[in-house]
Amino acid sequence: MISNRKFIAVIGGSQPSSEEAKLAEAVGRELAKQGAILVCGGLGGVMEAACKGASSEGGVTIGILPGDNRQAANPYVQIPIVTGIGYARNVAVVKSAQAVIAIGGNYGTLSEISHALQSGIPVIGLNTWALSRNSQQDNSIITAQSPAEAVNKALNLAIE
Amino acid sequence: MISNRKFIAVIGGSQPSSEEAKLAEAVGRELAKQGAILVCGGLGGVMEAACKGASSEGGVTIGILPGDNRQAANPYVQIPIVTGIGYARNVAVVKSAQAVIAIGGNYGTLSEISHALQSGIPVIGLNTWALSRNSQQDNSIITAQSPAEAVNKALNLAIE
Amino acid sequence: MISNRKFIAVIGGSQPSSEEAKLAEAVGRELAKQGAILVCGGLGGVMEAACKGASSEGGVTIGILPGDNRQAANPYVQIPIVTGIGYARNVAVVKSAQAVIAIGGNYGTLSEISHALQSGIPVIGLNTWALSRNSQQDNSIITAQSPAEAVNKALNLAIE
Amino acid sequence: MISNRKFIAVIGGSQPSSEEAKLAEAVGRELAKQGAILVCGGLGGVMEAACKGASSEGGVTIGILPGDNRQAANPYVQIPIVTGIGYARNVAVVKSAQAVIAIGGNYGTLSEISHALQSGIPVIGLNTWALSRNSQQDNSIITAQSPAEAVNKALNLAIE
Repeated sequence: MISNRKFIAVIGGSQPSSEEAKLAEAVGRELAKQGAILVCGGLGGVMEAACKGASSEGGVTIGILPGDNRQAANPYVQIPIVTGIGYARNVAVVKSAQAVIAIGGNYGTLSEISHALQSGIPVIGLNTWALSRNSQQDNSIITAQSPAEAVNKALNLAIE
Repeated sequence: MISNRKFIAVIGGSQPSSEEAKLAEAVGRELAKQGAILVCGGLGGVMEAACKGASSEGGVTIGILPGDNRQAANPYVQIPIVTGIGYARNVAVVKSAQAVIAIGGNYGTLSEISHALQSGIPVIGLNTWALSRNSQQDNSIITAQSPAEAVNKALNLAIE
Repeated sequence: MISNRKFIAVIGGSQPSSEEAKLAEAVGRELAKQGAILVCGGLGGVMEAACKGASSEGGVTIGILPGDNRQAANPYVQIPIVTGIGYARNVAVVKSAQAVIAIGGNYGTLSEISHALQSGIPVIGLNTWALSRNSQQDNSIITAQSPAEAVNKALNLAIE
Repeated sequence: MISNRKFIAVIGGSQPSSEEAKLAEAVGRELAKQGAILVCGGLGGVMEAACKGASSEGGVTIGILPGDNRQAANPYVQIPIVTGIGYARNVAVVKSAQAVIAIGGNYGTLSEISHALQSGIPVIGLNTWALSRNSQQDNSIITAQSPAEAVNKALNLAIE
């Protein structure tokens, strides 16, 4: 039954480095192996690599799209959600997850990290943003050193 | 594989008549039997009855919620999408579907019918709104007389 | 002082008949004369005609745009609000008003009428949609026979 | 005429330090003196202090609210925009501005900074977040040492 499984978002840029794409694919595979459902923004780059990884292990993938067209989803998205609200959909990507794994990423990813932290949703980071405020480091992003560690932390910290 | 299946939205009020609730449950059952994935607003009333019907036949149910809390989903929603955008999520409910079945409903349902028609997504109506403009009837809502007819029309008219 | 003035939305299609455009311009003029602030979707057609009318009488005009670009506003919009959320901005157009005047219009306008009625915001109609449910007429849209009557009704019924 | 004036957003937390509140009020005053229109999220804290400052110099203030109720606006907001889309309205706050001044702030402010940078809208920072990625500092937030410097930079860098 789907409803007992954890929903974990994977966020990151649409133009990742090859290292970031590998991390994303490994994260997707590991999430699927552990029975989690993958939530993402539905487009290319990190999102596609994560969906590919999850699909290769028979996992379920959800893509919450910014535009008006389901055809914009990457080929590994099984459940496209078509919001039509542009980058305001970033809010829905993180709110639909019980924990978030951030891989690399640009300002769009940073907005998702911010919305997650604002909503009390745990964020695990792999090679991603670091934050500081008034010269003090902010440690809200929980760092991980490997895809397996990121997935384990996400599943352990997932909120209800 | 999920991705070859049609996504059909069922829309309607959160306080339906008992007749409308029965129609919604029958529509949900029939959608599941025909392999369609049910999209709805995730809350009670028609949404819950449709999800209950689909679940009873082993179907997949998606609830696109207005609020910030996945716990607000009715118990038959397997995939809760948490948008946090309030009734602007009505746009996402219909855009995420390839056809829409409207059952009864109040002004929220009418807004969903309108957004669907604006986006070129077919709307099948069971005991729902009728529209006219400048004293001329508007026949864009395709009427059906039974749940089975509504589901068949929705599947036949579903856009890509 | 702006804050004591009423905010009234004018909604309608982007391709109105010449009669509808004239009505919109007259409504805009009358709103400005009576000190109301005009809210609209910021684009062409009825929205532009209403803004033009209001501007000609020195009124204030707000355009709540669907896209990412302030340049998309019609030339009579003084205060462009750039939402980037597509047609979900229809919700913001009506919620930002204390009453709504609908002139003609297509399905986008109908979605705005629906969202307003759902939110308890009075809707005054000039040559616009008529609604019925289960063969019973719904009289929630308050009809007016002239721009002056529409504006007077909107100002009298405006909520706080 | 309003339309030739620059729209500048002031963003920051709803529970600022007294130093941050003073900075915000001074920024609001300076924006008004220079003829700019203030855009903000419409609530308390930095938003209210900035609106208060702008109002004291006769400036125009716009508050783009997350909720459903215009009454939630702080008393210095002259033009309340009621979005009903929750924190997705952060996108609209920054997109409606030609430059953004960030003062202090928490994760909500960081999401606004991110959305602005993603959209190519200049961000000037006063005692706010600092960013780094993969151990490299990101200098996209332009720092200022005083309210006057922040306002001058915002007006000089404002996009069309």
